[in-house]
Amino acid sequence: MASAERPEVLLIGFGGVGVLYAYVLQRGGARITAVCRSNYDTVKANGINVFSDKFGEHLNWHPDQVVRSPDEIEGNAFDFVPDVCPSSETIRPYLEKNLSLSPKNNLPLIVLIQNGVEIENEVYESLVCSDKPLASGVVGGLTWVGVTLLGNGTRIEHGFLERLKIGLYPPPLADEVPSDTASAFDQLVELFRQGGSNVEGTNDIVGVRWSKVLWNISWGGLTTLARRPVSAILEAETLPYSAGVVYGIMLELLAIARAHGINEDRLPSVTIDQVYDMTMRNTNAKIRVTQNPDQFLEPMENKNLPDDFKPSILVDLERERPMELHVIFGTLLERARAANVATPRLDLIVAALMPSQVAFVRKAKGLTKEDDSNKIYDANPALNKTGGAPVLGP
Amino acid sequence: MASAERPEVLLIGFGGVGVLYAYVLQRGGARITAVCRSNYDTVKANGINVFSDKFGEHLNWHPDQVVRSPDEIEGNAFDFVPDVCPSSETIRPYLEKNLSLSPKNNLPLIVLIQNGVEIENEVYESLVCSDKPLASGVVGGLTWVGVTLLGNGTRIEHGFLERLKIGLYPPPLADEVPSDTASAFDQLVELFRQGGSNVEGTNDIVGVRWSKVLWNISWGGLTTLARRPVSAILEAETLPYSAGVVYGIMLELLAIARAHGINEDRLPSVTIDQVYDMTMRNTNAKIRVTQNPDQFLEPMENKNLPDDFKPSILVDLERERPMELHVIFGTLLERARAANVATPRLDLIVAALMPSQVAFVRKAKGLTKEDDSNKIYDANPALNKTGGAPVLGP
Repeated sequence: MASAERPEVLLIGFGGVGVLYAYVLQRGGARITAVCRSNYDTVKANGINVFSDKFGEHLNWHPDQVVRSPDEIEGNAFDFVPDVCPSSETIRPYLEKNLSLSPKNNLPLIVLIQNGVEIENEVYESLVCSDKPLASGVVGGLTWVGVTLLGNGTRIEHGFLERLKIGLYPPPLADEVPSDTASAFDQLVELFRQGGSNVEGTNDIVGVRWSKVLWNISWGGLTTLARRPVSAILEAETLPYSAGVVYGIMLELLAIARAHGINEDRLPSVTIDQVYDMTMRNTNAKIRVTQNPDQFLEPMENKNLPDDFKPSILVDLERERPMELHVIFGTLLERARAANVATPRLDLIVAALMPSQVAFVRKAKGLTKEDDSNKIYDANPALNKTGGAPVLGP
Repeated sequence: MASAERPEVLLIGFGGVGVLYAYVLQRGGARITAVCRSNYDTVKANGINVFSDKFGEHLNWHPDQVVRSPDEIEGNAFDFVPDVCPSSETIRPYLEKNLSLSPKNNLPLIVLIQNGVEIENEVYESLVCSDKPLASGVVGGLTWVGVTLLGNGTRIEHGFLERLKIGLYPPPLADEVPSDTASAFDQLVELFRQGGSNVEGTNDIVGVRWSKVLWNISWGGLTTLARRPVSAILEAETLPYSAGVVYGIMLELLAIARAHGINEDRLPSVTIDQVYDMTMRNTNAKIRVTQNPDQFLEPMENKNLPDDFKPSILVDLERERPMELHVIFGTLLERARAANVATPRLDLIVAALMPSQVAFVRKAKGLTKEDDSNKIYDANPALNKTGGAPVLGP
């Protein structure tokens, strides 16, 4: 760990969130190497224009180094490797190159900033636990931020909201962390803080991921199927339909979490009520909770969502961009099937969004529907991704 | 019953289906009085242009009488009153006028041609079973037809598909029907047949309604949430998600039917497999049903859906027209709640479509969202339309 010098950061995934946190980490004192794809030329030549209500305006901001592939990397070995689109296959070649740059075989921390539960596991198993480790550990991160990369990757726009929670994976909970890893993690938190981020370290990133997913799939999932802002499912005429469904979705998720050992300590059941209330307070309806027809709840203060607020997955859907279905929903479905937990609502949400996902990915690859016809479907209920398995096909 | 003369038909609901069957019944020998709203002037002056692959082309086709309200009706009392948008409140004033035209107090048969289950009940209770009956009986009808009213109500376009099932309500099953009613029903079947319709009489319209709803809510419902043609949920990449969900939806509907006394005789469980297979045969995927990776089902013959086929509820949604949510889905939800049957998938489908329904109705009434704010929401789980009841609200 080159703690006396400028910490070295390799950032993979230079979209809106990636650019924002690269910028934050550089402000915090790090040296940034960014991996760019489509916008390599413009970023190399002119940098990126940062427009942020919270972090200010910075025209032509430059990472310290911009590369397209592992072999273009020059300089020191890395301390931290944040990745906003995690997969060990994407990261591995960079870590191999990194090893060749490190005289003392110092290994970096991988930082995965991405929605979804237990997304760290695959990366942890294959890059940290392998016979020849390429990283010293994995940090999971969740961000609450509205940031968009615009103008063909030449600028980002960001409002005021920015909150980041990071924690070591697997969660140390009460366990002691090796001092090297602990001090690297502390340094990372400090880098974000110095850069201005509203960062918070947690010793249970897995529990935090589960609470975030409760909102994303319930209020977020129903809103996305409705193709309307959250406020549309909060009306007097729609709440008699949406309220029970939102609760039902959260109960399914809680059942999956419990089946995988996330107990009351780590994800209290009352979280469901909190997630419900937090959004319910944005309704404009008069709420009657007693049998007295003339008695209503006081109108709620502290609305926390703009009237036209849409969850990011719906924004992706409307822009015909691949959604995070496999990362966010896929893991949940796998865990539900593995533990034999029935998830009829979750199944239906994924089944209803998957056709768009398939179409968007196909379009991005320049393929047509005909290219995908005649592919194989295994009509074996045990291979189904969703429950309610069919009997033998036609 | 004026059986020796031309049978008198009063048709309420002069949309695509209404015009088509008015035309068919006139061809079959009936005298047609049509109730028109927005297109009254043009229908009165120029009639309607009928373009049908099955029934041929008929420019400027005229009903025998066109009216806007009950008091405009002249001539004989009616034998049959087909209605494609059933509600006793719409029909009642016409039946009261009808009674005043009938010297012998002959009462007509009401014919309800509309999707949904048990939609006949309300009309039957209030217009046939009342102290002062206004109709002699109710006939339920279901049609499989693709017909659209275009050009501001000046023409209809229809393909080849046309199939009609009608039956007395309540279903006589094995019971004997009063001979007057039986002969009126037979005359009605004959009128449709003479007009060229592929009509079939059934002694259990309720059972037939349940089998049709199985398709509408499962394949139709999932397709509608996906906002894509049915073929999009039949691909190799989407079937592992959609197959189980489609089955799961049908099992929920079967449970509601069973809880309301529709037993194996009237709705055999195997109907689910038939409804599944009938649509599954349209897939372009190669289907593997055994553990042998090289063994596939023979490609299926007899595809029965065009590649871009969308269910009518999705067509309504895309055209921002109010859907049949209350008629088709509302009755099912009420029956599920009444019998304490859990319907998580059905609940989610309705909850996801209701915001659009509310918005379309509001737009049709010229209202804005603000007009509907501050309405009352009863946060009492017992008053919820969907299951998964919430605990006390915020």
